[in-house]
Amino acid sequence: MSQPVAVQTLVRRTHEDRVLAALRAHGPLSRSELSEAVSLSRATLHDIVGDLLRRGALTTVAPAGAGPRGRGRPATRLALDPSAGQALGVDFGHSRVCVAAANAAHEIVFSREVAYAPSTPWARRVEIALDLVDRTTAETGTTFGALQGVGVGLPGPVSSGVPDVGWQVREGLTLTAGGGARTTLVERTLADRFGTPVHVDNNTRMAALAEAIWGAGADHDGLLYARVSEGIGGGLVLQGRLLTGSSGLAGEVGHVTVAREGLECRCGKRGCLETLASVPAVVRAVAGLRPQVRSFDDVVALLDAGDAETLEVVSRAGTYVGRVLAAACTTADPAVVVVAGEITRAGDHVLRPLARAFRDEVLERHERRPDPRPTALGSDAGALGAIAAVFNRSPLLTGYPLLAGGTTS
Amino acid sequence: MSQPVAVQTLVRRTHEDRVLAALRAHGPLSRSELSEAVSLSRATLHDIVGDLLRRGALTTVAPAGAGPRGRGRPATRLALDPSAGQALGVDFGHSRVCVAAANAAHEIVFSREVAYAPSTPWARRVEIALDLVDRTTAETGTTFGALQGVGVGLPGPVSSGVPDVGWQVREGLTLTAGGGARTTLVERTLADRFGTPVHVDNNTRMAALAEAIWGAGADHDGLLYARVSEGIGGGLVLQGRLLTGSSGLAGEVGHVTVAREGLECRCGKRGCLETLASVPAVVRAVAGLRPQVRSFDDVVALLDAGDAETLEVVSRAGTYVGRVLAAACTTADPAVVVVAGEITRAGDHVLRPLARAFRDEVLERHERRPDPRPTALGSDAGALGAIAAVFNRSPLLTGYPLLAGGTTS
Repeated sequence: MSQPVAVQTLVRRTHEDRVLAALRAHGPLSRSELSEAVSLSRATLHDIVGDLLRRGALTTVAPAGAGPRGRGRPATRLALDPSAGQALGVDFGHSRVCVAAANAAHEIVFSREVAYAPSTPWARRVEIALDLVDRTTAETGTTFGALQGVGVGLPGPVSSGVPDVGWQVREGLTLTAGGGARTTLVERTLADRFGTPVHVDNNTRMAALAEAIWGAGADHDGLLYARVSEGIGGGLVLQGRLLTGSSGLAGEVGHVTVAREGLECRCGKRGCLETLASVPAVVRAVAGLRPQVRSFDDVVALLDAGDAETLEVVSRAGTYVGRVLAAACTTADPAVVVVAGEITRAGDHVLRPLARAFRDEVLERHERRPDPRPTALGSDAGALGAIAAVFNRSPLLTGYPLLAGGTTS
Repeated sequence: MSQPVAVQTLVRRTHEDRVLAALRAHGPLSRSELSEAVSLSRATLHDIVGDLLRRGALTTVAPAGAGPRGRGRPATRLALDPSAGQALGVDFGHSRVCVAAANAAHEIVFSREVAYAPSTPWARRVEIALDLVDRTTAETGTTFGALQGVGVGLPGPVSSGVPDVGWQVREGLTLTAGGGARTTLVERTLADRFGTPVHVDNNTRMAALAEAIWGAGADHDGLLYARVSEGIGGGLVLQGRLLTGSSGLAGEVGHVTVAREGLECRCGKRGCLETLASVPAVVRAVAGLRPQVRSFDDVVALLDAGDAETLEVVSRAGTYVGRVLAAACTTADPAVVVVAGEITRAGDHVLRPLARAFRDEVLERHERRPDPRPTALGSDAGALGAIAAVFNRSPLLTGYPLLAGGTTS
């Protein structure tokens, strides 16, 4: 979390989470049913429920199928309010921001995005995001009185668990200027605005989390996600939790060394996967053979035209990615491997050699080999993942099976 | 857990865990203090405490510094019983079994080992282990009335999360005959004997968990453990939890492909790290140059004598291990990397080139590069890890920072 939370507050949040989880699991409950379901003392429960009602997270529902009766009137029941936003997710990309919100029933209430120029400063990006949230909440009638937290995806290496002081972002790895200052700016602005914890993480990892819960990894134990675009990033969701890593760099499969004598990488090493298989690396390699090539569109056009040398370059890139993912899977043993990003526009030209290399080098797992597959989500994957990160940071949910799907072993 | 546990039982265990955790954290408490600390209803707490007292997990202590007084006698307080074994760990190796127990205060009550022949059948190994437990409990006055679970480390691929039916152990990877049947035998015999859940996992992973909690990884966020001996195994402890993997094979760094055109490995692939850097692989390579070499002792003797070609072989093995660990660290971002096993008898001859290759290929993490280091524990690491696995499977503890040290991000 972005700021220290007193133990008292944490305990209270845990109690709130138990109440919300019970109502999510059972549907509307009377106060005495709820008391039994959550094993909280009556006094504690009374406080928690009163507060949740006041903040709009809960509503009361009339007894099913019964108007007021003379005597023995069934108790009013408590239920989650479907219009109460409980988690807000914001995914800042290079040229657009996507915002999404979920209610306490873990249903997505809205998901919207708006473009900005890649040069837009971070303060302005945050303003644009807040504007979009305001407009969308007004349109959809969403309330944020019971907001539990805000999740934020940012490009590049970030971890809200790592303090900004002393957090040295390597220039090469920071895809946008700002580094720690950027994280702090976003965290503080959103924390001030919503008065909740703000959880910031790399947006590729956020997308991995969403993919694990709602996408290709749903109902599977563990997911390795690789996004091959301008750079190569990734994320691991293992045993029901998104892996951040000790320095906020878990999942950086793009910086596994593939060619020891290769090109220098922006991370400072040589021959990283990214120097050989990212979209710019592929464009560069094809342009070396076909000087008219300027962009990945041109590469895709050559692939469609059946150009043998271009096919060879793209195939080799896929092979490198497949090898690195095979090593990562042999180490971490996820059930599912997802390949996302712009490179997938090359379709089978890249995915077939990738899968072949992967199969050759992964430790075979008794009928459960996790063949690489494409992403199952759209462009709001990062924002959805940011929402999931909020829910999954709740002390009660942490370590338990993910919200929907995602089993722990 | 080895067998399905009814939800009711699970809830009860959670309550028990909360009571024990509160007493562990606060020391002796009166019933009313305890009730406040755990937020359980009086009736529920009364049941739980009564049962824990009856089973010997708790004792009552007289009010501090006060005999019975005429009136206003301070309440009797509840405390953990230091002689009550709460978790039993059993580590079956190729030629010895180690048993250890911890009480509810998470203190190690005993740790003993006894040798057997490598050919000893599994049923007999379990008998030997149970004998050792009986003798040791008698000598130390340990009781098992409040035993929470038994953790078991076995060589080879095992996962108690994966049912034995349909669990096809690849012959090549199974270091001992038996496979699934072996796991079932051990699980059932121990479950029958102790009447608790039995948690079985690979013993290298168990050692990794112990190393993360009590050894080189204590107070660090995440540990990668590699054991280079007869084979090469490993384990990952990430975000406070031991990674099992979707098919019970997490941490198998020995089967990352290093040389695509290399020797066939017992896992069915070619050129795995194990074919190049395990102790037998090193002995074989040195014997190819120095026909008098029969064992790793001979290799170590040649290293001590400064034999250049032997130094070269051992250095190359270290380099391969360093590369694979660098790729694993770039992917999983643990704070600490531990290299254990027989290979470490070669000392700096293997560890220096290993560290050099690691440094060259790991993604650098702003002043926190996890340089490989030796193990900090002795031969009971596996049994201690099995104990930790029992504690860490408790619903309350799961997902929280590990017992002692081990921070989550």
